[in-house]
Amino acid sequence: MTPPIVTLLTDFGERDTFVGQMKGVLLSHCPDVALVDLTHQVSPQSVVEGALHLHAAWRSFPAGSVHLAVVDPGVGTSRRPLALEFEGHRFVLPDNGLISAVLQGVFPDAVAEIQVPDTSDAGISRTFHGRDVFAPAAGRLATGAALWEIGSEIDPSTLVRLELSEVRTTEFGVAGEIVLVDHFGNAITNIRASDLPGEPSGVAVGCGTFSVHRVSSTYQDVEPGEPVALVSSMGTLELAVRDGSAAERFGLETGATVIADA
Amino acid sequence: MTPPIVTLLTDFGERDTFVGQMKGVLLSHCPDVALVDLTHQVSPQSVVEGALHLHAAWRSFPAGSVHLAVVDPGVGTSRRPLALEFEGHRFVLPDNGLISAVLQGVFPDAVAEIQVPDTSDAGISRTFHGRDVFAPAAGRLATGAALWEIGSEIDPSTLVRLELSEVRTTEFGVAGEIVLVDHFGNAITNIRASDLPGEPSGVAVGCGTFSVHRVSSTYQDVEPGEPVALVSSMGTLELAVRDGSAAERFGLETGATVIADA
Amino acid sequence: MTPPIVTLLTDFGERDTFVGQMKGVLLSHCPDVALVDLTHQVSPQSVVEGALHLHAAWRSFPAGSVHLAVVDPGVGTSRRPLALEFEGHRFVLPDNGLISAVLQGVFPDAVAEIQVPDTSDAGISRTFHGRDVFAPAAGRLATGAALWEIGSEIDPSTLVRLELSEVRTTEFGVAGEIVLVDHFGNAITNIRASDLPGEPSGVAVGCGTFSVHRVSSTYQDVEPGEPVALVSSMGTLELAVRDGSAAERFGLETGATVIADA
Repeated sequence: MTPPIVTLLTDFGERDTFVGQMKGVLLSHCPDVALVDLTHQVSPQSVVEGALHLHAAWRSFPAGSVHLAVVDPGVGTSRRPLALEFEGHRFVLPDNGLISAVLQGVFPDAVAEIQVPDTSDAGISRTFHGRDVFAPAAGRLATGAALWEIGSEIDPSTLVRLELSEVRTTEFGVAGEIVLVDHFGNAITNIRASDLPGEPSGVAVGCGTFSVHRVSSTYQDVEPGEPVALVSSMGTLELAVRDGSAAERFGLETGATVIADA
Repeated sequence: MTPPIVTLLTDFGERDTFVGQMKGVLLSHCPDVALVDLTHQVSPQSVVEGALHLHAAWRSFPAGSVHLAVVDPGVGTSRRPLALEFEGHRFVLPDNGLISAVLQGVFPDAVAEIQVPDTSDAGISRTFHGRDVFAPAAGRLATGAALWEIGSEIDPSTLVRLELSEVRTTEFGVAGEIVLVDHFGNAITNIRASDLPGEPSGVAVGCGTFSVHRVSSTYQDVEPGEPVALVSSMGTLELAVRDGSAAERFGLETGATVIADA
Repeated sequence: MTPPIVTLLTDFGERDTFVGQMKGVLLSHCPDVALVDLTHQVSPQSVVEGALHLHAAWRSFPAGSVHLAVVDPGVGTSRRPLALEFEGHRFVLPDNGLISAVLQGVFPDAVAEIQVPDTSDAGISRTFHGRDVFAPAAGRLATGAALWEIGSEIDPSTLVRLELSEVRTTEFGVAGEIVLVDHFGNAITNIRASDLPGEPSGVAVGCGTFSVHRVSSTYQDVEPGEPVALVSSMGTLELAVRDGSAAERFGLETGATVIADA
């Protein structure tokens, strides 16, 4: 018997016991679940950042996994709590666009609006749906429950979607932007390898004062301390400094425009 | 067979491998244990903060769980290492008041003083009882051992208890204090919903320059950036700012007096 | 059946989903694995710091455990990815000295160079071997695969080793250095208890303005706020301040010389 997997992604941080409480509820519903933290350091209430991290991670897990994601500025309002099926994975999250980057414009295979327990009940909080609404739903899915057992089916075309920035072709070349800066100070863009206007070795990349004349294969194609552009582990263009922090050295931040030109 | 659960709460941080070492010992004693981190970011040696976090989290776990908590400024002295049973859960921790907020003044069902291994033995540290005393005890309890198998019974009335601040009725209204500031900058108080002097919608709340005229149901009862008071997921009054940090905006800190008045 | 254990140690931090992605791959290969984080807060690309943390932790786990360690400034170059057997444990890591402190100058029982998947394949990254090379290898070892099933045997004498600082005898006494500063601000040295030039109670310890006249048994041998030296849970001399941070109070940093004199 393969134990079911539930991943967790939140903006709850790790100083409080919020994530621990969710795990207690998950284990109460599904005692043999394997729990995996994706990250709990999404910037508070940044749905777009959460969406990108979820996108980066979910495909590393086997089909059948449940992905529980809670970045939820609308907790306590009428925003819908959702359970989705997509490419053999299931997702439990608020209907605020958090699923957008996973779907990449495609429709999920099925969506249900999770039945919310009566919040006038003792023990059901109106401010912590992560514990009281989303974790029980994910726990039940992990035990093998179907979507329709935890909620009622809704029309996939009604999902809230973020407007994720698109790559454009401009007179200066292909223009995208920095979508994430990682722990090492590498700047990850939304420009896919397939968006590059030519062979990597012939494509120049610029962003503010960051400038390189080619897209490299590895960090070691340049000397320590030198800037380098390459295709990241997410499959998109990454701006880095070998053995250093590109974010710090060149002041790179999310939202900055990046140009790739042949 | 339901795998046993051990939760971990410490002030060890996550930069070193202290928590990992404890988990290695737990798995050595109980290979099928499910390990759940509550938090390891308790302020160094702050027993009261650890006690409040443990209180916030333990009830989210199923009965039978073992809660291992180590905030232990007295490590290496004669303070007693304890194993307790309370409402179907077991707790393993130093006798320094860390259990106080869980018990809320009540006696536990049973208490044992854990038998300490001979510290003159190679491999038994006098400074890391988390690994060498508490983790082995929790691991054995997780395998189903009884309290008396890991120590000798002691009188529950002899436990060290913290003097947790109490809510008082004053001429200005009900007076409590901020006991925790969470990751979002929300200030959690010790004032329970049942302590409020009237219907929530008619109770004003103040703390320094923070002031609201009612206790709300959700963050969304106010506009973004506005202060809001509500009942937290811990069941006590919480001071917040919608989509912002109340701690930052109003300089709220633990220990500050909070008044709730009808 | 005892579930296999894989520990993880990286410099990936916890803000991104890198560690989560590795765990997804590990669970894909070995669904019943118990995953334990040692630390992910090794200073970026600090192989020596990673080596010391791995050394501190591995012996707390039962024989048969797999230790996956990725601090890998040479990712994408020809540095070899390794799988080693040593004293009943297995280690999966880059050949850059990360294993040095575990081995302490001894040869491992067996070493294999891990077969790297073709990086021209879709989905195999040249910058994230943690996910695409090391995690699959560790996952297969966890399922019971032998070293020779995941790579080809190589000569143990060819391993890259760090030159770890050695303890010397000088005219001033035994001279070592601070190798780690922990979360509490305690400074851990490389001076083993057996290196001390006499009975602990008669050995004075100095480092910059830190000075004590004896090596104590516990923190409580001195008053709160006072400096204390003792044998750490790693088995080496530790410089501390009772209920405080020695690093902050005395400006202690890794690399500083420590003298122990009878």
